[in-house]
Amino acid sequence: MSDQLINITLPDGAVKQFEKGTTGLQIALSISEGLARNVLATKVNGEVWDATRPINQDAEVQLLTWNDKEGKSTFWHSSAHLLAEALEALYPGVKFGIGPSIENGFYYDVDFGDKTVDGSELEKVEAKMIELARQKNEYNRKEISKKDAVNYFQKKGDEYKLELIDGLNDGEITFYQQGNFVDLCRGPHVPNTGFIKAVKLLNIAGAYWRGDENNKMLTRIYGVSFPKAKELKEHLQMLEEAKKRDHRKLGRELELFTFSEKVGMGLPLWLPKGALLRERLVSFLKKAQDKSGYQQVVTPHIGHKALYETSGHYEKYGKDSFQPIATPHEGEEFLLKPMNCPHHCEIYKHKPRSYKDLPIRYAEFGTVYRYEQSGELHGLTRVRGFTQDDAHIFCRPDQVKDEFVKVIDLVLYVFKALGFEDYTAQISLRDPETKEKYIGGDEAWNKAEAAIIEAAEEKGLETVTELGEAAFYGPKLDFMVKDALGRSWQLGTIQVDYQLPDRFQLEYVGSDNQKHRPVMIHRAPFGSLERFVAVLIEHCAGNFPLWLSPEQINILPISEKFIDYANKVHQLLEENDIVGNIDNRDEKIGRKIRDAEVKKVPFMLIVGEKEEQEGKVSIRKHGEGDLGSFTPEEFVKYFKNIISESLNK
Amino acid sequence: MSDQLINITLPDGAVKQFEKGTTGLQIALSISEGLARNVLATKVNGEVWDATRPINQDAEVQLLTWNDKEGKSTFWHSSAHLLAEALEALYPGVKFGIGPSIENGFYYDVDFGDKTVDGSELEKVEAKMIELARQKNEYNRKEISKKDAVNYFQKKGDEYKLELIDGLNDGEITFYQQGNFVDLCRGPHVPNTGFIKAVKLLNIAGAYWRGDENNKMLTRIYGVSFPKAKELKEHLQMLEEAKKRDHRKLGRELELFTFSEKVGMGLPLWLPKGALLRERLVSFLKKAQDKSGYQQVVTPHIGHKALYETSGHYEKYGKDSFQPIATPHEGEEFLLKPMNCPHHCEIYKHKPRSYKDLPIRYAEFGTVYRYEQSGELHGLTRVRGFTQDDAHIFCRPDQVKDEFVKVIDLVLYVFKALGFEDYTAQISLRDPETKEKYIGGDEAWNKAEAAIIEAAEEKGLETVTELGEAAFYGPKLDFMVKDALGRSWQLGTIQVDYQLPDRFQLEYVGSDNQKHRPVMIHRAPFGSLERFVAVLIEHCAGNFPLWLSPEQINILPISEKFIDYANKVHQLLEENDIVGNIDNRDEKIGRKIRDAEVKKVPFMLIVGEKEEQEGKVSIRKHGEGDLGSFTPEEFVKYFKNIISESLNK
Repeated sequence: MSDQLINITLPDGAVKQFEKGTTGLQIALSISEGLARNVLATKVNGEVWDATRPINQDAEVQLLTWNDKEGKSTFWHSSAHLLAEALEALYPGVKFGIGPSIENGFYYDVDFGDKTVDGSELEKVEAKMIELARQKNEYNRKEISKKDAVNYFQKKGDEYKLELIDGLNDGEITFYQQGNFVDLCRGPHVPNTGFIKAVKLLNIAGAYWRGDENNKMLTRIYGVSFPKAKELKEHLQMLEEAKKRDHRKLGRELELFTFSEKVGMGLPLWLPKGALLRERLVSFLKKAQDKSGYQQVVTPHIGHKALYETSGHYEKYGKDSFQPIATPHEGEEFLLKPMNCPHHCEIYKHKPRSYKDLPIRYAEFGTVYRYEQSGELHGLTRVRGFTQDDAHIFCRPDQVKDEFVKVIDLVLYVFKALGFEDYTAQISLRDPETKEKYIGGDEAWNKAEAAIIEAAEEKGLETVTELGEAAFYGPKLDFMVKDALGRSWQLGTIQVDYQLPDRFQLEYVGSDNQKHRPVMIHRAPFGSLERFVAVLIEHCAGNFPLWLSPEQINILPISEKFIDYANKVHQLLEENDIVGNIDNRDEKIGRKIRDAEVKKVPFMLIVGEKEEQEGKVSIRKHGEGDLGSFTPEEFVKYFKNIISESLNK
Repeated sequence: MSDQLINITLPDGAVKQFEKGTTGLQIALSISEGLARNVLATKVNGEVWDATRPINQDAEVQLLTWNDKEGKSTFWHSSAHLLAEALEALYPGVKFGIGPSIENGFYYDVDFGDKTVDGSELEKVEAKMIELARQKNEYNRKEISKKDAVNYFQKKGDEYKLELIDGLNDGEITFYQQGNFVDLCRGPHVPNTGFIKAVKLLNIAGAYWRGDENNKMLTRIYGVSFPKAKELKEHLQMLEEAKKRDHRKLGRELELFTFSEKVGMGLPLWLPKGALLRERLVSFLKKAQDKSGYQQVVTPHIGHKALYETSGHYEKYGKDSFQPIATPHEGEEFLLKPMNCPHHCEIYKHKPRSYKDLPIRYAEFGTVYRYEQSGELHGLTRVRGFTQDDAHIFCRPDQVKDEFVKVIDLVLYVFKALGFEDYTAQISLRDPETKEKYIGGDEAWNKAEAAIIEAAEEKGLETVTELGEAAFYGPKLDFMVKDALGRSWQLGTIQVDYQLPDRFQLEYVGSDNQKHRPVMIHRAPFGSLERFVAVLIEHCAGNFPLWLSPEQINILPISEKFIDYANKVHQLLEENDIVGNIDNRDEKIGRKIRDAEVKKVPFMLIVGEKEEQEGKVSIRKHGEGDLGSFTPEEFVKYFKNIISESLNK
């Protein structure tokens, strides 16, 4: 029994005294039993620990539960160990690569030796996991010498773990054991396997050891797990719904975009309806930006390699991106532009600037190209070429905060008009411990970080702060938006930059007649059109806001006798910028309605004998059904009203 | 004296008999003495000859004068010889490279040996040329053996001519002599130097022998000449005016675009006003295209090398253009796209097509990149990256002519709206003697050429036909537009293509349920936005049609007391999409007006005490002056009226 007391500071600032060697679990228990049952891990002075690991000094402590990102990842990491334990029980002699938590669950890379394991066996594995979970085996942490660690895995014959140990230093190696399973692991873990009440192994795929195609292909098993069975059920329902809303599937069905192997993977080809959707988004944002004092510019998609050497992009990304483009003569080298900022800096520089000219806000829907490995590509969310709704604000240091606030206003306006009501802001700062990863000096970084924090506070944003997530040239504020399925997407970004103005030696003449350096703000409310459209498709399940819909109406004549009348109605709609076609196929009206419903066309205008005689159209709304009959003019008015309401709310 | 008669068919179809050995000059004389004085050369069975060269067989004959392109080029070619004669008289021992006629005059490349000759000596040379011209020395043609030709120039010591002779076969060498000057030359030439009444040597520049930087740098002297002194005077005035209208100069002054060495030569950076002008052109054409059944698509700026191998572009341009872009892994190779067609073919292919779906018209403002040597670059007319107002029509063979006609209609609508009233159409066909330069078989070429000719006839276009000017994949019709200074520019292009559909194996299912190949039409009314804007700037001297003007108004408060009222007026204008600024500098009103005039702002709205009290603005029109006072609402109405008139004429 210890007689020493330590001071534990809780997140609300309260300081409590505990005996030296207390644990997160004990601290939780001192608050409530309910809390103790839910504690998955403990954050001690910013580091995540096992909830059962003794705390021997004064510390700031946060108890992590399922509601915390780090609580969830601890839970899933422990679930990966449980998966490994189950596999070892079912397939003796199996060897293990790595088994981390990921964004929505966990995986483990496994070498089954000669045996082939496929999806049909996953249910058996799940059952074994639940069986082991019910044993409530504790996850026990043990510091171990490198020699002993090597001995253990040599005996077991696991060359993967030996390779991992090889990269570690003596004194930083820990093992975790639950039940009969021992793993090389930094931890932390939940107190015992009993926390894991529900497991689903989702799929199985091949994965090269360490991601290197020269290595052996291991079997990767993906899973997800929950502290309550009900949560798993909801999650699986969400996945089912997400599958239906998959933007790749809807993009194909609604004929928005396609890909061609021959053009190249990750390079979307926008079909007419997708191009129209894109253009609507562009016009919408341009209009909002016009009002906010932005000016459009247009710049080329390539630039001299030297341009990116000046900007620092080449040093940072050059080796891993598309390689330089040589010229047949004159020995020049160009790069596909990975970012628009250097071009905008050159535009800023094309003439002398005065303090009275600032802020200058250059906007461009600029298409940039960045190489991604083919395995990383995914529909429109991970591509090799994408169009940023980019802008760069060149301002005086005293204008930074106000400009930042104005950009936040613009981003929130965009979110609102597009139906994203649920968001938080992530402030990404430099990791002060790895300053060498960032360009620029302390003073500039501190000023920039302060400006962002101040602006976010002024706008009353709900924020999360992440150290180490800043861009290499400056801190940023990213908006994390929740979609209709509760999934988080990083969309709009705003970044303060004191570095590029230095690198490009940008200047303005101040009121003191001296030369000064402007500050740059990079910002993109959508982020990229490709990614934004992908998120939007999944958010609204392809039922776009009416003003964005690339096929707003279908006119459905009951038979070919009414095609003339349909054409007349169509012309009126076209004159009012209402987009859509006449379905003049020789099909029954029921079939025409069904097809329009599948295409998610917001309004169907049915025209037959009665309609023509009365000079009306029968309106049917997608997913809702009959709205009654309107004169075409009434419908136009009704239609325009919906649009102006949704854009001005 | 010959007793043999030959039949000479004149362009109007009339057949006249002449004695064998007659000449163009004699034929002209048989018509009128005036004509004979103006005949510069004779076209005999499609070949241009000296007007003094005997015709010994029945032939189709056209007498060429200053009004014919070939008449002009003969005249200028003879002027180049006259320049050489003058130089030899003034600088004995001088050696000559080549001395051709060019689009607007002629040049001669000269090796002055040790002597340096600069622009200050050109007047002296001009005077000598006129002196020699007055001697009316005949240009005499002489067929000569290779041996004698070599002997002549060996004696003279002119290694350049010797090198040229080296490349010729015996039996195809001719000399021309006028006065004391003898030149290796295929001819033809005007009858005598007396035809040349006015000469101006325009400038002097360095040029490598045969364009190869490893060779010696010669001195190139450019000049222009005319059959009447008055014509030279007018031409020099035109050049003076062209200098004022140079789009590079106006582009800078009006802040439309700029270039940056760091981004790369020939890659325009569009400044806000230029980007707005560009966007207006794009919206204008999009609207017209929407009405004509086009659909916008959006495709990436790169594509796999294999895509261009399929299309044939790589074989044709690969070596001389931007080199392939490697990826850091996976060994892929991409190219910057030199054309949009392959991408549009891949979009066509993304799903099966029926004969009922055709025509499909895919439009894209697609930015393409083509390498040009830095010495070839020129403002916006010769660049390395440019945006085509591109579209590809995929249609059935029976739709080609109708589609072609519709495209001609669209192009003419565009020209009219932009004030280009004077144009001819050039039909560019394959040179049947160098078929190997083109891809595709005879049948397809013949069909395509016939469709173009028929469509042009149906629209009653004034056409010129050029053999050998077709694209490598098909024949085309280009519009040659005359600008306000009478200069010709090649703008809109329409091309029929039976080749790419073959190469991409494009198909549709016909009404016979069989697979058929569609035909493609490539077309671009502007050609490229860059080139079009350049021509437009020079055509209208920067005074853009009001609807295009990127700065339509300036509001000029007489003093800062009226800035509030100016703001109120400004807001009303902005609500009506009228673009421009308030000049709220602390300057006298006279200065503000002068500055707005220099910026070629179409309307100035002056606001002072009287205007504010009366709720009016005083309107001043660029280049015209005071229009009187208007209420702001009256001005908006007046303004909109001008625009709708110019767009609907």
